[in-house]
Amino acid sequence: MKAAILTGPGPMIIDDVTLDGPGPGEVRVKLTACGVCHSDLLPIHRARGPGLTNPVILGHEAAGVVEAVGAGVRSVAEGDSVICAFRPSCGACFQCARGDSQLCEQPDDPQRAATGRHPRLRWKDRPVSQGIGVGGFAEMCVMPEGGVVKIRKDAPLDKVCLIGCGVTTGIGAAIHTARVEPGSRVAVIGLGGVGLSVVQGARLAGARQIIAIDRLASKLELARGFGATDCLLADADVVQRVQKLSAGRLDYAFEAIGLGSCVAQAVAMVRSGGTAIAVGVTLDSVTISGMELLREKKLIGSFYGSSRIQHTIPMLVDLYMEGKIKLDELITRRRPLEQINEAFEDLEAASVARTVIQLA
Amino acid sequence: MKAAILTGPGPMIIDDVTLDGPGPGEVRVKLTACGVCHSDLLPIHRARGPGLTNPVILGHEAAGVVEAVGAGVRSVAEGDSVICAFRPSCGACFQCARGDSQLCEQPDDPQRAATGRHPRLRWKDRPVSQGIGVGGFAEMCVMPEGGVVKIRKDAPLDKVCLIGCGVTTGIGAAIHTARVEPGSRVAVIGLGGVGLSVVQGARLAGARQIIAIDRLASKLELARGFGATDCLLADADVVQRVQKLSAGRLDYAFEAIGLGSCVAQAVAMVRSGGTAIAVGVTLDSVTISGMELLREKKLIGSFYGSSRIQHTIPMLVDLYMEGKIKLDELITRRRPLEQINEAFEDLEAASVARTVIQLA
Repeated sequence: MKAAILTGPGPMIIDDVTLDGPGPGEVRVKLTACGVCHSDLLPIHRARGPGLTNPVILGHEAAGVVEAVGAGVRSVAEGDSVICAFRPSCGACFQCARGDSQLCEQPDDPQRAATGRHPRLRWKDRPVSQGIGVGGFAEMCVMPEGGVVKIRKDAPLDKVCLIGCGVTTGIGAAIHTARVEPGSRVAVIGLGGVGLSVVQGARLAGARQIIAIDRLASKLELARGFGATDCLLADADVVQRVQKLSAGRLDYAFEAIGLGSCVAQAVAMVRSGGTAIAVGVTLDSVTISGMELLREKKLIGSFYGSSRIQHTIPMLVDLYMEGKIKLDELITRRRPLEQINEAFEDLEAASVARTVIQLA
Repeated sequence: MKAAILTGPGPMIIDDVTLDGPGPGEVRVKLTACGVCHSDLLPIHRARGPGLTNPVILGHEAAGVVEAVGAGVRSVAEGDSVICAFRPSCGACFQCARGDSQLCEQPDDPQRAATGRHPRLRWKDRPVSQGIGVGGFAEMCVMPEGGVVKIRKDAPLDKVCLIGCGVTTGIGAAIHTARVEPGSRVAVIGLGGVGLSVVQGARLAGARQIIAIDRLASKLELARGFGATDCLLADADVVQRVQKLSAGRLDYAFEAIGLGSCVAQAVAMVRSGGTAIAVGVTLDSVTISGMELLREKKLIGSFYGSSRIQHTIPMLVDLYMEGKIKLDELITRRRPLEQINEAFEDLEAASVARTVIQLA
């Protein structure tokens, strides 16, 4: 099959790869579309720096149709529409048992499978990794059963694919991690696909004030369509400006970029007893003043929107089909697989909310 | 009346001071006893460094009997036993209205009153502040009505005075801030009066494992009596040792010292999705890795144990009278007011859990 392969610091290569499986407990998905998400930049940066162990197929926001299932697979069958989930859940470990399947501890993880015990992908006789657990910039992928979520057949796969990562991460951060209540005041720092989804989640939850913050005016305009009530261009005084706008009563501040300094700003801008939620993947450290803790502020991390994928993903698909959440407006443009490198250039320039790669 | 006055970098002076009031909405309390709490070291350090604005009477863990009430006071009357609360609540502001009276926003604060608008204390014609809102190392104090809590008359004031700060702060952090559940695993870093109270709170809440951590072996022994199931001498490997002891499943880690580095250790030692609670007054900053947030860890501040004083303080007095919490074992020694400086030497040497100053 055809795939986009990252082999080193240069651009991705479009070439043929071989795909094995599905083995027992696995599912092969014919992919329809895959979103281009910020987290895919991490392996790209790794390729430019310390280097990659294996070539890798990126893309982890994918949807498609089940083409074949391995022995023992019961939750999906050939022909089902599915969204791929980059963090499969085993349903049996400590975290799954306590209801936090997003923190699943089991090595039922296609990233490990693909890089280690059971490589499913090969290119020129070299094993190829499934980047961030999916490998969605390809015509097909093989996932563990716990990494595919069956959804309704009438859902347009080239739109609901965004629910595979950014939309679930953002809306989930608002409704599952923070549990934003009606009447609350919310700020969102960073308005990419995840940040706009946080805005949308806060609106769903009935927040009275949603302050959207970004460095680009074009993003602010977009945020208004997702439910932002106030829009601020980020500058050095952003904390004070948010405090003034919210009369010092900001209940929640979400960081949706992944910068330690912005996480600290989120902590600073909430009221005494308020909550900052780190949604972006923050690779650096976060430094906050002890005085913020004396004011009973809370800093909480959010992974995959604290979503139980088998519950949250079909629910969000339903909400989209019922017109209650927006996806179309998140998609800035569509490209064929051949333009994958241009799509990443747009992403690094922060000039798009989401590009969707059409695979079928 | 007689009081211990901190006037500068040297030892406190025992001398006569004049006390005005109670004015409208105020209560005069004849004090029976006052605990010596770590937070009182902060004004002492300030006196050694940048200096004090006014002389100050320290002591904020006090109990006594109401001697007189000002106009309009309705919740207490002459002869009532009371515990002084260093953070009065007005009952009317945004935070009080939402049930977080520990974060009361109103300037109904004797610290401000004493240093600003309505100084109640004078020494040699100079205004004297009520340190940390009470001024308990004296024969009497004048408090706003919202800063005294009526308790049952049969409670021994020279013991339940500890509920005025350390015990409420520690037990409250476990049962109110963290809401420790039965069956959970808990670690407590620092075993002063507050840390031992966290241990006791975790036991009350039904924690299955309570790992007590300190640098002094004598404190560990004491912690066992309060409910600790495991005791660790703090060392460079403490995070790994706690993770091993808890099989990587530590739900809550409490920091009860007030050091940014120990708060960071608390974050590091909890499991994915676990909660670190900053109970100590941390004046420095706290730096944590962004990776901890990606594992959905939470860092939350606790002030006064997130206690609603009018509810929590009488409840803890009841629990003591019913034999359900320990106070006597917290009291390492008793001293008269004249030995106040020796009591602080013991505190700085960390050789006591609590000294109680007998005032009547």
